[in-house]
Amino acid sequence: MKFKVPRGTQDILPSESWKWQQVEAIIRDVCELYRYKEIRTPMFEQTELFQRTVGDTTDIVQKEMYTFTDRGNRSMTLRPEGTASVVRSYVEHKMFGYPDQPVKLYYSGPMFRYERQQAGRYRQFVQFGVEAIGSADPAIDAEVISLALDVYRRAGLKDLKLVLNSLGDGESRKAHREALIAHFAPHIGEFCTDCQSRLNKNPLRILDCKVDRDHPLMASAPSLTDYLNEESAAYFENVKRYLDAIGISYELDPNLVRGLDYYNHTAFEIMSTSKGFGAITTLCGGGRYNGVSEDIGGPHAPGIGFAMSIERLLLALEAEEKTFVDEPDLDVYIVSLDEEAHRKGFTVLNDLRNAGIRADMDYMDRKMKAQMKSADRFNAKTVIVIGEDEVKENVVQLKNMEDGTQQKVKDSLLLEKIKEQLK
Amino acid sequence: MKFKVPRGTQDILPSESWKWQQVEAIIRDVCELYRYKEIRTPMFEQTELFQRTVGDTTDIVQKEMYTFTDRGNRSMTLRPEGTASVVRSYVEHKMFGYPDQPVKLYYSGPMFRYERQQAGRYRQFVQFGVEAIGSADPAIDAEVISLALDVYRRAGLKDLKLVLNSLGDGESRKAHREALIAHFAPHIGEFCTDCQSRLNKNPLRILDCKVDRDHPLMASAPSLTDYLNEESAAYFENVKRYLDAIGISYELDPNLVRGLDYYNHTAFEIMSTSKGFGAITTLCGGGRYNGVSEDIGGPHAPGIGFAMSIERLLLALEAEEKTFVDEPDLDVYIVSLDEEAHRKGFTVLNDLRNAGIRADMDYMDRKMKAQMKSADRFNAKTVIVIGEDEVKENVVQLKNMEDGTQQKVKDSLLLEKIKEQLK
Repeated sequence: MKFKVPRGTQDILPSESWKWQQVEAIIRDVCELYRYKEIRTPMFEQTELFQRTVGDTTDIVQKEMYTFTDRGNRSMTLRPEGTASVVRSYVEHKMFGYPDQPVKLYYSGPMFRYERQQAGRYRQFVQFGVEAIGSADPAIDAEVISLALDVYRRAGLKDLKLVLNSLGDGESRKAHREALIAHFAPHIGEFCTDCQSRLNKNPLRILDCKVDRDHPLMASAPSLTDYLNEESAAYFENVKRYLDAIGISYELDPNLVRGLDYYNHTAFEIMSTSKGFGAITTLCGGGRYNGVSEDIGGPHAPGIGFAMSIERLLLALEAEEKTFVDEPDLDVYIVSLDEEAHRKGFTVLNDLRNAGIRADMDYMDRKMKAQMKSADRFNAKTVIVIGEDEVKENVVQLKNMEDGTQQKVKDSLLLEKIKEQLK
Repeated sequence: MKFKVPRGTQDILPSESWKWQQVEAIIRDVCELYRYKEIRTPMFEQTELFQRTVGDTTDIVQKEMYTFTDRGNRSMTLRPEGTASVVRSYVEHKMFGYPDQPVKLYYSGPMFRYERQQAGRYRQFVQFGVEAIGSADPAIDAEVISLALDVYRRAGLKDLKLVLNSLGDGESRKAHREALIAHFAPHIGEFCTDCQSRLNKNPLRILDCKVDRDHPLMASAPSLTDYLNEESAAYFENVKRYLDAIGISYELDPNLVRGLDYYNHTAFEIMSTSKGFGAITTLCGGGRYNGVSEDIGGPHAPGIGFAMSIERLLLALEAEEKTFVDEPDLDVYIVSLDEEAHRKGFTVLNDLRNAGIRADMDYMDRKMKAQMKSADRFNAKTVIVIGEDEVKENVVQLKNMEDGTQQKVKDSLLLEKIKEQLK
């Protein structure tokens, strides 16, 4: 029997993991600039948390969750997204009482959705996201969007498009909801059974349906924008004004609704416009969710955030034919030619590492030539060669791989010489 | 209804997450010194992988796994430990064919065991671990142990003890197994039902039993050390010799068996000897596992590794009354006194961040005094104050929080002035 990585998941091997580390370093740096602090929530939560926040009628909750019963007979679900857990934590730890509001948080970690497999879509994928909870200032909407764009820019992406919409407040959404029902009801028999059951429960979700996306009634559906009340329209104007003020351009898309129930007011996506990129162009999605805290038993605490897939970010970099620069592997590689030399080499290795020098040696009892090849593959700047004579004489051979020179060095002077050479 | 973090799991809040980040930076640095590269495997695997490697008769597999059936009707298990997944990945991606053996890998991430709750033990916990796969050189056993100790030392821990044992090879274990059965069989009725069923399946696990740990037959049980064959004893001698050579001291404990079936030859634990530390003193456990690759259908590929809990590392630091130093939060905080000033402040904020300066502002429409308090809490080095006059005159007030001086600065010169002040 052969064991394989579970379908729809992937191993990130050393040939890729260094890129992930670089993205994560960018994330930490940008979040520090904006004073967003890291929060880590568990991989799973009570199932009801997602039903209540993401929404019972969404595809995520209906079809895509990894739900299981734990040994204490509680229904748990591997987190399909990050916002619900962060708001749960905000309420549970009474962060609404912190003197500095909004509380600005970020997370980065695996999310789980049982989706059909396709390029760039995994069942376990990694999302970086931020949440600013506790402020209804439209400037913070612009800040959150700016932060997402900064991460992409620092990673090297250029072909980006910001798409913006407003879903309005409760009153606006109610008016729009009624218009949607009136629009779809006469022809609802032509839609999939999911959409039929969505009609009265949550008609907005029809616009998000993957099955009926080409039905002509989709394009002619009443637009949210036309149903925004005065307050919601003013809020949206202010968000746009702040974006304009800091030079962030955007496209308006009245059909942008996002696949989660908790959004209101600002909704946005950042897409790749690179020609090399696949069919799914959305890199990042987010928006405002002023009701989630109350929905789960907390106080009123307006929030806004986004989530971006790291897998997609890396794919977008590839599509733009950009990549990070990898550091050379090693400062020193130690070649040893017999058992005694190996023993001596091991103590030298330990001394080097204690001095903060990146070093390695052979552990396979190989011939000199094979060991030298390893040194090459690791881009070692310096090679130390130890044979029978070197052990007897308390010296090593020190080879500078950049200029090819070689010298015999006393053991007691080795560390000093190497530091000099590495400078 | 109130939502809570699932029992036995925890949220890592910003007041703690910066410590995790510092531990992770140490891990990255030390692994780079030793040329271990990061691998990331999924949070879950086929259940059978753990049954096959960790072992059917272990507590982990019998009682502690989070096992669920996915929507494709496959039995999956949240990973209870890291080695099985890493070796699975080594085999699946044919890393045994890489030119440089051993393949040296590290991981850091959540593991899941449904255990009884107690201090320092979580159902979701984070392990950092390394695996060196493909070499049976005893020097690499010493390298792996040295790496673990280096991580602790760099984190600042001093009260540490290394405990060492050898479980021997297959032949040695078989001889010991027979001696164990002969030892326990006459009195097996006095042991728990788990131990009774372990007797013939896996008598070594009896020594690991939490229920019967005080039975007199435990202390008098035949020791593995007495059953090591010549080859195993010689291997163990070599490991000790390499540890001696690099000045790592250890205690021998013939009863150290580890709670996983796959270990052979070297087994070790690193414990905290700090008086302030709790009942569970093991910080890190590891050992050699020469058969795991073959057990799961791969080629012979001897391996050695360890896993350490990050939660325990942080607890041990607390016990030794050590901690990391937190960086101040902010370079600049912007105080704005009306709506127009807020708008101007937001563009200044954006300019600062674009220049790599950590900056923030008020998003709660608060009075000046409350905003100044935030600036204090964030340890802002500089405060910018913008009011009605400053907007009109295209200036800001720049306050140096270290010496208390304040000056009026033209907008166009602001960035330059601030950079000067922050130097």
